[in-house]
Amino acid sequence: LYNHHQLHGSTGLRSGSQANFFPPLEDAMLPSGSFNNRMALITGGGTGLGRAMTATLSQLGAQCIIASRKLDVLQRTAEEISSQTGNKVHAVQCDVRDPQAVSQCVDQIEALTGLPDVIINNAAGNFVCPSERLSPNAWKTITDIVLNGTAFVTLELGKRLIQNQKGASFLAITTIYAESGSGFVVPSASAKAGVEALYKSLAAEWGRYGHRFNIIQPGPIRTKGAFSRLDPTGAFEKAMIDRIPTGRLGTPAEIANLAAYVSSNYASWMSGAVIRFDGGEYVSLAGEFNELRSVTPDQWKLLEAMIRKTKGS
Amino acid sequence: LYNHHQLHGSTGLRSGSQANFFPPLEDAMLPSGSFNNRMALITGGGTGLGRAMTATLSQLGAQCIIASRKLDVLQRTAEEISSQTGNKVHAVQCDVRDPQAVSQCVDQIEALTGLPDVIINNAAGNFVCPSERLSPNAWKTITDIVLNGTAFVTLELGKRLIQNQKGASFLAITTIYAESGSGFVVPSASAKAGVEALYKSLAAEWGRYGHRFNIIQPGPIRTKGAFSRLDPTGAFEKAMIDRIPTGRLGTPAEIANLAAYVSSNYASWMSGAVIRFDGGEYVSLAGEFNELRSVTPDQWKLLEAMIRKTKGS
Amino acid sequence: LYNHHQLHGSTGLRSGSQANFFPPLEDAMLPSGSFNNRMALITGGGTGLGRAMTATLSQLGAQCIIASRKLDVLQRTAEEISSQTGNKVHAVQCDVRDPQAVSQCVDQIEALTGLPDVIINNAAGNFVCPSERLSPNAWKTITDIVLNGTAFVTLELGKRLIQNQKGASFLAITTIYAESGSGFVVPSASAKAGVEALYKSLAAEWGRYGHRFNIIQPGPIRTKGAFSRLDPTGAFEKAMIDRIPTGRLGTPAEIANLAAYVSSNYASWMSGAVIRFDGGEYVSLAGEFNELRSVTPDQWKLLEAMIRKTKGS
Amino acid sequence: LYNHHQLHGSTGLRSGSQANFFPPLEDAMLPSGSFNNRMALITGGGTGLGRAMTATLSQLGAQCIIASRKLDVLQRTAEEISSQTGNKVHAVQCDVRDPQAVSQCVDQIEALTGLPDVIINNAAGNFVCPSERLSPNAWKTITDIVLNGTAFVTLELGKRLIQNQKGASFLAITTIYAESGSGFVVPSASAKAGVEALYKSLAAEWGRYGHRFNIIQPGPIRTKGAFSRLDPTGAFEKAMIDRIPTGRLGTPAEIANLAAYVSSNYASWMSGAVIRFDGGEYVSLAGEFNELRSVTPDQWKLLEAMIRKTKGS
Ligand SMILES: NC(=O)c1ccc[n+]([C@@H]2O[C@H](COP(=O)([O-])OP(=O)(O)OC[C@H]3O[C@@H](n4cnc5c(N)ncnc54)[C@H](OP(=O)(O)O)[C@@H]3O)[C@@H](O)[C@H]2O)c1
Ligand SMILES: NC(=O)c1ccc[n+]([C@@H]2O[C@H](COP(=O)([O-])OP(=O)(O)OC[C@H]3O[C@@H](n4cnc5c(N)ncnc54)[C@H](OP(=O)(O)O)[C@@H]3O)[C@@H](O)[C@H]2O)c1
Ligand SMILES: NC(=O)c1ccc[n+]([C@@H]2O[C@H](COP(=O)([O-])OP(=O)(O)OC[C@H]3O[C@@H](n4cnc5c(N)ncnc54)[C@H](OP(=O)(O)O)[C@@H]3O)[C@@H](O)[C@H]2O)c1
Ligand SMILES: NC(=O)c1ccc[n+]([C@@H]2O[C@H](COP(=O)([O-])OP(=O)(O)OC[C@H]3O[C@@H](n4cnc5c(N)ncnc54)[C@H](OP(=O)(O)O)[C@@H]3O)[C@@H](O)[C@H]2O)c1
Repeated sequence: LYNHHQLHGSTGLRSGSQANFFPPLEDAMLPSGSFNNRMALITGGGTGLGRAMTATLSQLGAQCIIASRKLDVLQRTAEEISSQTGNKVHAVQCDVRDPQAVSQCVDQIEALTGLPDVIINNAAGNFVCPSERLSPNAWKTITDIVLNGTAFVTLELGKRLIQNQKGASFLAITTIYAESGSGFVVPSASAKAGVEALYKSLAAEWGRYGHRFNIIQPGPIRTKGAFSRLDPTGAFEKAMIDRIPTGRLGTPAEIANLAAYVSSNYASWMSGAVIRFDGGEYVSLAGEFNELRSVTPDQWKLLEAMIRKTKGS
Repeated sequence: LYNHHQLHGSTGLRSGSQANFFPPLEDAMLPSGSFNNRMALITGGGTGLGRAMTATLSQLGAQCIIASRKLDVLQRTAEEISSQTGNKVHAVQCDVRDPQAVSQCVDQIEALTGLPDVIINNAAGNFVCPSERLSPNAWKTITDIVLNGTAFVTLELGKRLIQNQKGASFLAITTIYAESGSGFVVPSASAKAGVEALYKSLAAEWGRYGHRFNIIQPGPIRTKGAFSRLDPTGAFEKAMIDRIPTGRLGTPAEIANLAAYVSSNYASWMSGAVIRFDGGEYVSLAGEFNELRSVTPDQWKLLEAMIRKTKGS
Repeated sequence: LYNHHQLHGSTGLRSGSQANFFPPLEDAMLPSGSFNNRMALITGGGTGLGRAMTATLSQLGAQCIIASRKLDVLQRTAEEISSQTGNKVHAVQCDVRDPQAVSQCVDQIEALTGLPDVIINNAAGNFVCPSERLSPNAWKTITDIVLNGTAFVTLELGKRLIQNQKGASFLAITTIYAESGSGFVVPSASAKAGVEALYKSLAAEWGRYGHRFNIIQPGPIRTKGAFSRLDPTGAFEKAMIDRIPTGRLGTPAEIANLAAYVSSNYASWMSGAVIRFDGGEYVSLAGEFNELRSVTPDQWKLLEAMIRKTKGS
Repeated sequence: LYNHHQLHGSTGLRSGSQANFFPPLEDAMLPSGSFNNRMALITGGGTGLGRAMTATLSQLGAQCIIASRKLDVLQRTAEEISSQTGNKVHAVQCDVRDPQAVSQCVDQIEALTGLPDVIINNAAGNFVCPSERLSPNAWKTITDIVLNGTAFVTLELGKRLIQNQKGASFLAITTIYAESGSGFVVPSASAKAGVEALYKSLAAEWGRYGHRFNIIQPGPIRTKGAFSRLDPTGAFEKAMIDRIPTGRLGTPAEIANLAAYVSSNYASWMSGAVIRFDGGEYVSLAGEFNELRSVTPDQWKLLEAMIRKTKGS
């Protein structure tokens, strides 16, 4: 009745045509000044999504610190954003895998701006690889950045904030496959799942110290960092768009608006939340019968007639 | 070492004192005019959270329709909001349990404003009761409103929007116990879980028609409707606040800002998302060792010493 | 690099060849006599999975009652099983949608065998259909059987068991798309999600009365009832097998062994559990990068080289 | 109406009295010989739950290898079990945190028995501690054992099994707070969540090589290793039992039967499953209204009367 080609999404509505219904709205969403007098630390803030979140917070009045390994990249980003927004962006070198480096980085932050009000754990590493080709080192490269890195930054800042009786909003950027797992990105899946448990745990434990912890799980948003290591040939992208219900990738500015909301006092009652932001990709993948989207109206009539004629079990 | 009294949250930090760190910010968050020229339907919009969401959308420029059983309540609310915002709010009587009434209500809406761009399924019923005291009728009273009602409204509007090739944002208000289940509110738990599956399913299936489907799971927010049937004596409230990491209940204005964001084009890439908004209550309940929050610093020192001395397994 | 055909699973290992690693073991697993002197009620026990579970429990010594609408089918099954196992199987007509019929059915059961020790809620209805083609009646046909039917049977038995201070094991058969939702089977997804919340809720609430509540989520197992309404042309089956990690469908005898375990005293400490039994299909569907299984070893070498050359983000 | 004392579980049914309904059945459940000619590796098999699983598999015919740091403990256990079952149990020293040690351990296993058919990743470390008192070293002590250790063992065995075209069943022992997170055991929660994602990912990716991956999440089962570090004073245990719907802790023999089933060919179609085995504790904790179990029948009558009198919302 329906052939293999049809089963995989090429009939009926041209895939992605629905994207017109879902235009990205990329202006800053929060009232200007929402982050006045607030300090924000964004790890991995020099590139990609981290950069976009930094730009939005800066535009809304925050003084930002961005931290990662490549100081030159950070400095260029800091300058560009701060020249556009008029608000200071600081660049601090830090390899989050190293607890001592993290501690020194926080020393620097305390000296520069004082302890932050907003922390976004966004630094990560990832690449596609069959798991039987992973060495212990490859495993550790990813999990050290993603899980240990996030833990070191979070625990170090948490301790100092608690000592100073200062509240803060913590946000972690994970991924839609953190809960389900996924083949071919296994160290990332495991580490991001660990990050989610870390943040849900601390949401419960450290509320009493004035801290909130939330999670955003992005779906595919084109950045050089992610796409060059997850889809180097670009061959995967079409299949991805085909199955995203909103028919398009997300944009950095969209996730920046969401992150700003979650980090703002408008969300001061939000803690322990896990927000999927993926154009619907996850539910589209996970639902067992969703591939029937390729059945045409005429085929449905036939199917219905057959089902109606079925008697008994 | 720690006694029964201490195990249940009465030592150390006075419960709820942390609420100072999490002040509600209740002004409208989105840019004014965000919903200009958009029509919004809010079921159960005459009272409680539905009323707050209606007020916010109206303030942001939407033309709203509120629908439920009590026309007088709806009309009073419609008038009050519209006199404050200057934007028309329509009141339409509708018992969502009745598919014909739903169809007629949508006829009326088409006549009044055209099909809506924003749909918020918020109408619900609930009360606390041991399950062995539930009659089949009590079961149906709740599930008919919550699950069938949401389905009838959603399917009726969906069909007409599809025929008119019009996109829309659907939002369902469920609850933090929809996933975990909960004793003593079992019909509500079951029906809300059904609503979540309905919305995740349609997020996958109807994206191609330009529709988004998302879910907000509120934690406790005082409304007359909810609290008079879930905690009629008020005895439960203290225990609830004690375990909420942010130390306070949520406010209707806060959830209205979140709902407005999810329903706006700023979130046009959000579909199939389930957003818990509960001050951290859910993770606080669910984590097996969270009751250790009542252990005092001195007790921790003792515990650590004992653990250190443990040898072997 | 890899073409559309390859992306959808047709290269490398012939799909399903791995099934040799996963041979079904269909003998009764529990010690014989495990259910001696125990009464078991299986709804929908006349056909498909319900029949297989009945056969296994009967073989292990239980006295079984099977209940559904078609008395002739039930009686034939009852006779066949009981002639093979030597243990009585009773057939009782009951439409679970009707609370009065359910109550009368339980009267009959009390008269025949006394209240059951083991209850398996397995009766269900389902068919594939685009949601925009669903009438309110089609919606209710499915949700009335699956959600209300399960609730009526469970609440009626629960009440009487509580009054009699008798413990019992309740098991519900749901589906792998109950949590994720799925397009094209939306009433079933919603109702099964409701059943899961019902059982998790009662696991918490009714433990004090000696009741356990658990859930099995089957993946695809060929039965006439399910497959004639979900894949009437058979066109869907190949795609399903292709993505099941164990390379084959499940068998009724396998799920019967699992159900017998969960219902036995070996699992007397199991309550509130949700056991997916699906050959790995769910995790295979849900993981974002699982489609990379079609990348060949040679292509992986190329991909790795490209990733290695990537500099910066 | 109901006072603080009553809200916390001390009225009505004496807590735990229901345990009589849920007696543990501790005999080996599977047919004898079920694991004849099969090799099983159990990490942490010298003590606690690992020891119990080893004993059951050995009794059912498996040749077992147990591996952990303390060779003397392993040897004593190996001898005791093997003298009871008549089947060889091998003791191999291995610190799972060290990838080289893991590789050498697998060399030894290959020499002793050949690659295993059954792998149970059970080794772990844990202790209770407020997160603000955790040093980076404390964090790494736990996550290195639990997450990296499990990954090193799993990846090393997986690679060699794949090269040898040999299928296997992998089982990981995690915990009920892996998904929800939990304060005061945060490194464990994070690492166990990582393990779950690892196993779900590989269930999807490595099915084609003949491997299955499943997870058991135990609730509280008294072992020296766990209880001496999680509840050194014993003060926590009563509260735990009070909220467990089955009114008691689990026993090592019960989880051993479940693990044997999951690892056997009776479950050859099970992959990617996550089985909670906790007496219902998790659902009891997580459900928002479950504390109402302390309301007495008389109080319910009053509550119902109040709710009935409520008019409007
Ligand atoms: N883009 C997507 O589609 C997508 C989807 C799901 C999740 N995400 C998540 O979104 C976040 C941002 O990703 P992206 O797409 O924006 O990619 P990206 O540009 O590559 O961002 C990663 C950032 O992490 C930093 N980083 C890496 N290792 C570090 C270390 N050891 N110490 C400190 N910083 C380190 C990098 O800076 P340096 O090189 O200077 O250290 C870089 O700025 C990540 O958490 C990613 O997992 C992205
Ligand atoms: N407040 C909380 O703490 C809380 C927590 C979790 C979830 N929620 C959810 O939030 C939503 C709003 O609750 P609320 O607290 O604002 O309580 P509420 O004021 O009682 O709101 C319920 C609304 O539903 C309407 N409704 C009830 N039955 C209906 C029917 N058959 N047809 C049409 N409309 C019907 C009611 O209006 P009529 O009486 O006029 O029909 C009422 O306006 C609900 O979905 C609730 O489950 C609330
Ligand atoms: N097979 C699969 O692949 C699969 C996958 C996931 C889940 N499941 C679930 O497994 C269970 C069994 O399904 P199956 O595959 O064995 O299909 P089946 O043979 O069609 O079983 C369904 C049973 O439900 C009974 N039933 C239907 N409506 C009823 C009503 N109103 N009152 C009482 N009984 C009613 C039917 O008997 P009468 O017609 O005599 O009433 C029939 O015996 C179902 O819960 C299904 O959702 C199956
Ligand atoms: N008991 C419970 O209530 C409970 C609840 C939830 C989960 N669990 C889980 O069940 C499993 C068993 O716990 P248990 O209660 O039986 O406690 P246990 O007796 O302390 O078992 C832990 C085992 O792990 C081994 N181990 C620790 N570090 C290791 C390392 N670096 N390399 C190799 N082996 C190492 C230990 O042996 P050596 O000291 O010789 O290395 C020990 O045999 C654990 O995964 C635990 O998380 C238990």
